[in-house]
Amino acid sequence: MLAYGRQERPGACDGFASNAMPGFCILAGPLPGAVQEDVIMSRRRQIYEGKAKILYEGPEPGTIIQYFKDDATAFNAQKRGTINGKGVINNRISEYVFTRLAHIGIPTHFIRRLNMREQLVRQAEIIPIEVVVRNIAAGSISKRLGIEEGEPLPHTLIEYYYKDDALGDPMIAEEHIACFGWASNEEMQDISSMAIRVNDFLCGMFAAINISLVDFKLEFGRIWDGDYSRVILADEISPDGCRLWDMTTGEKLDKDRFRRDLGGEEEAYQEVARRLGLLENDGGPSEVFDLGAHRKLRGKK
Amino acid sequence: MLAYGRQERPGACDGFASNAMPGFCILAGPLPGAVQEDVIMSRRRQIYEGKAKILYEGPEPGTIIQYFKDDATAFNAQKRGTINGKGVINNRISEYVFTRLAHIGIPTHFIRRLNMREQLVRQAEIIPIEVVVRNIAAGSISKRLGIEEGEPLPHTLIEYYYKDDALGDPMIAEEHIACFGWASNEEMQDISSMAIRVNDFLCGMFAAINISLVDFKLEFGRIWDGDYSRVILADEISPDGCRLWDMTTGEKLDKDRFRRDLGGEEEAYQEVARRLGLLENDGGPSEVFDLGAHRKLRGKK
Repeated sequence: MLAYGRQERPGACDGFASNAMPGFCILAGPLPGAVQEDVIMSRRRQIYEGKAKILYEGPEPGTIIQYFKDDATAFNAQKRGTINGKGVINNRISEYVFTRLAHIGIPTHFIRRLNMREQLVRQAEIIPIEVVVRNIAAGSISKRLGIEEGEPLPHTLIEYYYKDDALGDPMIAEEHIACFGWASNEEMQDISSMAIRVNDFLCGMFAAINISLVDFKLEFGRIWDGDYSRVILADEISPDGCRLWDMTTGEKLDKDRFRRDLGGEEEAYQEVARRLGLLENDGGPSEVFDLGAHRKLRGKK
Repeated sequence: MLAYGRQERPGACDGFASNAMPGFCILAGPLPGAVQEDVIMSRRRQIYEGKAKILYEGPEPGTIIQYFKDDATAFNAQKRGTINGKGVINNRISEYVFTRLAHIGIPTHFIRRLNMREQLVRQAEIIPIEVVVRNIAAGSISKRLGIEEGEPLPHTLIEYYYKDDALGDPMIAEEHIACFGWASNEEMQDISSMAIRVNDFLCGMFAAINISLVDFKLEFGRIWDGDYSRVILADEISPDGCRLWDMTTGEKLDKDRFRRDLGGEEEAYQEVARRLGLLENDGGPSEVFDLGAHRKLRGKK
C-alpha cells in the first residue's frame, strides 16, 4: 500500500485511526466517545454555505458536518436550480465511494454518515485547487482545445483549477501552484498520485455498473499534526462532480442533464444510486426518496 | 556549458557548426558556400504569412527567410494596426539577442541578418507551444489570477499556451502537452531549462540598459538529424513579445503601448534599440529608420 504524506510524523493519528489497517489513518471509523445524534442535530454554528453544501461546526474539535443541499448551479453559478433529492443521493453515493477508497488506502476526510443529508467529516485546511481527472474529452476541454466531445484522450489527464469563484475558477498549471505556494511540491505529488488511484478505482467501480467515467473533480485538504501536515481527500464524489455516461446508450447520468437542460436530472441521479445498490427498496419508494415522510417525522415543513 | 537535446546523434551539426564552440552547434555562422544577396532578394516562394512576419523559402534546403512586417496585432488579432519601422527594429533586436544567446550556448534557428527586414534562419518543425516567462505580474495573468499588475511574482513562472489562433491560444499545462504529444518530456525539459537561461540572460541584458524584463514569449522548433531530433529556439525576441518597463519611470517600452492605446509605439521600440546601441547615428536619421531612402534605392514604392 502506498503511504501518502512524507511530511507526516509517524504514528500520529489523532485517535481517528482504524484498527483495520495498522499504521495507516482510516478516517471512516467511529468517533472516540459516543456522539449523540441529538447533539449533532441540535442548533449548531454554520461555518460556510457553498453552492451545494452547508458546513456546520462538528460535535468534537476537528470535525465538521457536511449538509448536502438539493441546490444545483452551473457555469460558475450563472445558472441556478434545484434537483429534488440530489442532496440525499449525493450524501449516500459519497459515503459509499469514500468508505471504499479508504479501504484501498486513500486517506479521506469522511468519518461517517449521520442522517439522510449529513455526514461527519474531519476538518481540514482547504487546498484551493480543484483537481479534474479526464479520461474522455467533454465539457470545457472540448471547447478549449477543440477536441470532439466523446473522444477518448490519449491518456488520462489531470488538470488543476484555482478555486476562486470571483475569478471563475481559472485553469492553472503546476507552475502556478508552486509559484504562489498553494501547495508544496510534495503535496502535489501526493495529490496527483491519489488522483490517479481514485480514477483507477472509480473506473472499475463504474464499469461494473455499465457506466463510463468520463471525468470527475476532486478536492483535497491538509490536516496538521503539530508541525507536520498531510493531504487527505475532501469534499464529495457524486454525480455533481463527475461525468457519467451509460456504456451502452451513452446517456448522461450526471449534472450535465441540468447544465444542458436535458431534463431527467432526478432520475439520472437515482439511477446511479440504484445501480450502486444504494436504494433499499428497488422499484418502490425508498428511505432515500421518502423525503416528505422524513420531514414530517422531523417536524420540519 | 549545458548541452540540450539528449536525443541528438553526437557530432551531427549539418555543416552549420561554428568553430568558436567545439562540439556545439552555433547557428549564427556563415552558410556553406556564398549565398548571393541577389538570389535571396529575387522572387521566391512564400511559405507562410503570420501576423508580424512572412516566411519565404530560403536559398538552401533547410533554410527560411523571415521577413519582419510593420503590422501589429493584439488580443488574438481582434485589434490591428501598424507601427512604422517596427519590422526593421525587431529584425535588428532579434539578431542582436539571438546572436548573444548562441554565445552562451542556447541553440537557435538564427543564421544571419540579410537586410533591413529579413533574416536567414534554419527551418525547424514548429512545436505548437508558446512559452511565456514571467518575472512580474502583468497582462493576462493579472486578470486571470487577480494579481495586481506590477507585483513581482514569488519566483519566475513559466506558462505554456497552445498555438492555435482559432482557439485563441488557450493556456495549457505540461499535462496537456504530454497527453496530446505536442512535445516529448525530454523536449519539455530542454525547453523549460532553456527558457530559464534565456530569462537570466535577458534580465541581465535589459538591466544593463535600465529596463525591467516583466515577461516575454518564446517559441521553439524541432530539427531532425536522421532519426534524432533536437530543440532550438525559434521565432524572434523583440518588444513585440516582451514586456519592457523603464526601471526608473516605469514607462512601457513594448507592444502594450499599442495594445492599450498609449501612443508612442514607434518611439518606444526605437528607444529599446537605441539603448542596445543598435541605432548607428544616435540622434540623427539612421540607416535603420531611413526607410524612404532605402525603398527608393531598391526601386520599390
